[in-house]
Amino acid sequence: MEHRVNILDCTIRDGGLVNNWDFSVEFVQDLYNSLSAAGVEYMEIGYKNSPKLLNATEPNPWRFLDDKFLKEIIPVKKSTKLSALVDIGRVDPDDILPREESVLDMIRVACYIREVDKGLELVQMFHDLGYETTLNIMALSHVPEHQLIEAFELVRKSPVDVVYIVDSFGSLDPAEIEHQVKKFHAMVPDKKLGIHTHNNLQLAFANTLTAARSGVSFLDSSVYGMGRAAGNCNTELLVSYIQNPKYEVKPILGVIEKHMLEMRENWEWGYIIPYMISGILNEHPRVAMAYRKTDERDKFVEFYDQVTSPEVTIQKN
Amino acid sequence: MEHRVNILDCTIRDGGLVNNWDFSVEFVQDLYNSLSAAGVEYMEIGYKNSPKLLNATEPNPWRFLDDKFLKEIIPVKKSTKLSALVDIGRVDPDDILPREESVLDMIRVACYIREVDKGLELVQMFHDLGYETTLNIMALSHVPEHQLIEAFELVRKSPVDVVYIVDSFGSLDPAEIEHQVKKFHAMVPDKKLGIHTHNNLQLAFANTLTAARSGVSFLDSSVYGMGRAAGNCNTELLVSYIQNPKYEVKPILGVIEKHMLEMRENWEWGYIIPYMISGILNEHPRVAMAYRKTDERDKFVEFYDQVTSPEVTIQKN
Repeated sequence: MEHRVNILDCTIRDGGLVNNWDFSVEFVQDLYNSLSAAGVEYMEIGYKNSPKLLNATEPNPWRFLDDKFLKEIIPVKKSTKLSALVDIGRVDPDDILPREESVLDMIRVACYIREVDKGLELVQMFHDLGYETTLNIMALSHVPEHQLIEAFELVRKSPVDVVYIVDSFGSLDPAEIEHQVKKFHAMVPDKKLGIHTHNNLQLAFANTLTAARSGVSFLDSSVYGMGRAAGNCNTELLVSYIQNPKYEVKPILGVIEKHMLEMRENWEWGYIIPYMISGILNEHPRVAMAYRKTDERDKFVEFYDQVTSPEVTIQKN
Repeated sequence: MEHRVNILDCTIRDGGLVNNWDFSVEFVQDLYNSLSAAGVEYMEIGYKNSPKLLNATEPNPWRFLDDKFLKEIIPVKKSTKLSALVDIGRVDPDDILPREESVLDMIRVACYIREVDKGLELVQMFHDLGYETTLNIMALSHVPEHQLIEAFELVRKSPVDVVYIVDSFGSLDPAEIEHQVKKFHAMVPDKKLGIHTHNNLQLAFANTLTAARSGVSFLDSSVYGMGRAAGNCNTELLVSYIQNPKYEVKPILGVIEKHMLEMRENWEWGYIIPYMISGILNEHPRVAMAYRKTDERDKFVEFYDQVTSPEVTIQKN
C-alpha cells in the first residue's frame, strides 16, 4: 500500500447488533486501550441515535451514546480516535455537541441510496460542528447504477471526508470490490474512500485487502469478526497483515483471549450456513437471523428451500 | 470462467488429518452420493499409503485405501470420480492395481520440492497403470525460486496431467496466488493447474476464486471446510459461486446438516487464533496443533510470544 490506511474498529457498534449492545464498561475500556496499543486509528464506540426517536424503554449506553458518560469511561483519550454512527431519521441534532466539547472525533452517517440527500444534510451539520464525517451508502449490491450516479452528484458538492462502500449483505467478491472502487474513485475523485464488509462468504478480509490495494483508505473491521450475522472483517487480520510498523496484533489477541471467546459462546456470529445462503442470494440477513432463533435453526436444506421458493412461505417464528 | 473447472472434494483425505480418519462408512457413502448430486467432479476418498511402510498397528480404511473394500462400499460409481493421495516413501507400488481393476480414477502425489524427482517417478508409474495423475508440490510459500525452476524442468518431461499449487501453511493471499499461477502457466504451459488452499487467514475461498479466474482448472475444497488445522476452501461455497448449471448446493447443505455440525462439535478445525498466527508467520501449523491439545490452548498471547521469540522455548506438551 502506498497510501496511508486507517483501520476503523466497529466491534462495539456492529457487534452490538449481535448482543443488543450488552457490553460491560470494562470490556469497552479494555477494547479502547487495546486498539490504541495495537495502533488502530479509530474505534466506533456505538450509535449516536436518539432514545426518544426510537421510543427506547431501556437505557442502552452504546446504542444511545452520551458525551457525559463517554467522558467518564474514557477520561483520557489515547491515540485512537472515537467515532459514532447515526441513522437517518433516528438522530436528534440537539443531542450533538460541537466537536471541541465532545469525546467523539468522527460522526458517520449510514443511509440507503434513496436517502443520500438526507444523509448529506446530516453530514453538513456534523461537518459544521467540526467533526470528521463519512457517508456510508448501505446495501451497495442492490443499488442501480443510475441512482449511484445521481447520488455522486450530490456527494461531490458535500464537505464529507470519506465515502464508504458498504457490502451490507456480504455478497460481493474481490473482483466486484475492485470494480466498485474504480467507479467510486472516478466519480468522486476528491473524496477518500472507505470499505465495510460482511463475512457471509468468507470474503470479508479478502475484499478489504483488495479495497486497500485499490486505494481505499478507511478499512472497517471488528475484533474476532464480531458483527451482525456473519460478522465483519477481522481486526486481528488487518493489523497482522497490513504493513505499518505501528500495528501490533498482540493487544488484540489479548482482547480475544480475555473477552471474545466467552462472548462467542453466548452470542453467535460468523460463518453460519443460513448467512452464507443469504450472502449467495444477495439478500439482507434478517430472514436468516430470525430463522436462527427458531427450533429449525440448523435445518439448512429447509431454510434454503424456503428462501429460494417462488411461493411466499409463512415464517415460523 | 471461460475454461472448464473441476472441483475436487478432499473432505475425507484432508479432514482425516483432523480426526484420524474416524469416518463411518455411512458418512463416506452419504458424502459420495451428495457430491455426485451436487455435480462435484472428484472426491478424494483418502490416502493410498501402505500400512506396512507406516508401521500401522490399527486398521484405518481411509488412510490405507484398499480396492476390495472400496468396491464394497461404493458398488456403483456415479458421475463423481474417485481420487487418492500418496506420499513419497509411504506408498507400496505392489498395492496399486491397474486402473481398469480399480475404483480409483486418479492418484495424486504429494511431495516437497526436494522430492519432485521421486514424485514424478511415482507419477510415471501411476500414469502407466492408466490413472489420471497430479503432482502436488507442498509448502509452496517456502520454495526458493531457483528450486522451482529446476523442478519445472522435470515436470515438463513428465506425463503428469495436473500440477498443483499447494498453500500448505495458509499464508498466501490472492495477489500472491495470481502471481504464482502466472509463473506456473509460463513454466509448464502444457499442464493443467490445480490449487489447494488452507483457511488460516480466511483467504481459502478468495484464493481459490482468484486461481480459478487466473486459469486454474482443478479446485480442491472440503465440505464445511473440514481439513487439517484451519481447514480448506469450503465445497459449499464453490458449488454456490462457480457458474455451472450442474452444480447444486442443496446436497452439500444436507451433508453439513446431517453430519458436519456434530463432527465440528467433536473435532476442531477452521479459523482458530493459533492457526491464524501460524498462517501470518508462514509456518507449518504443527506447533499450533500441538498447543491446541494442551491446557494453554486458549492463551493466545502466550502462544504468540512463544512462536515469535528469538529464543528456543521448551514445548509444554
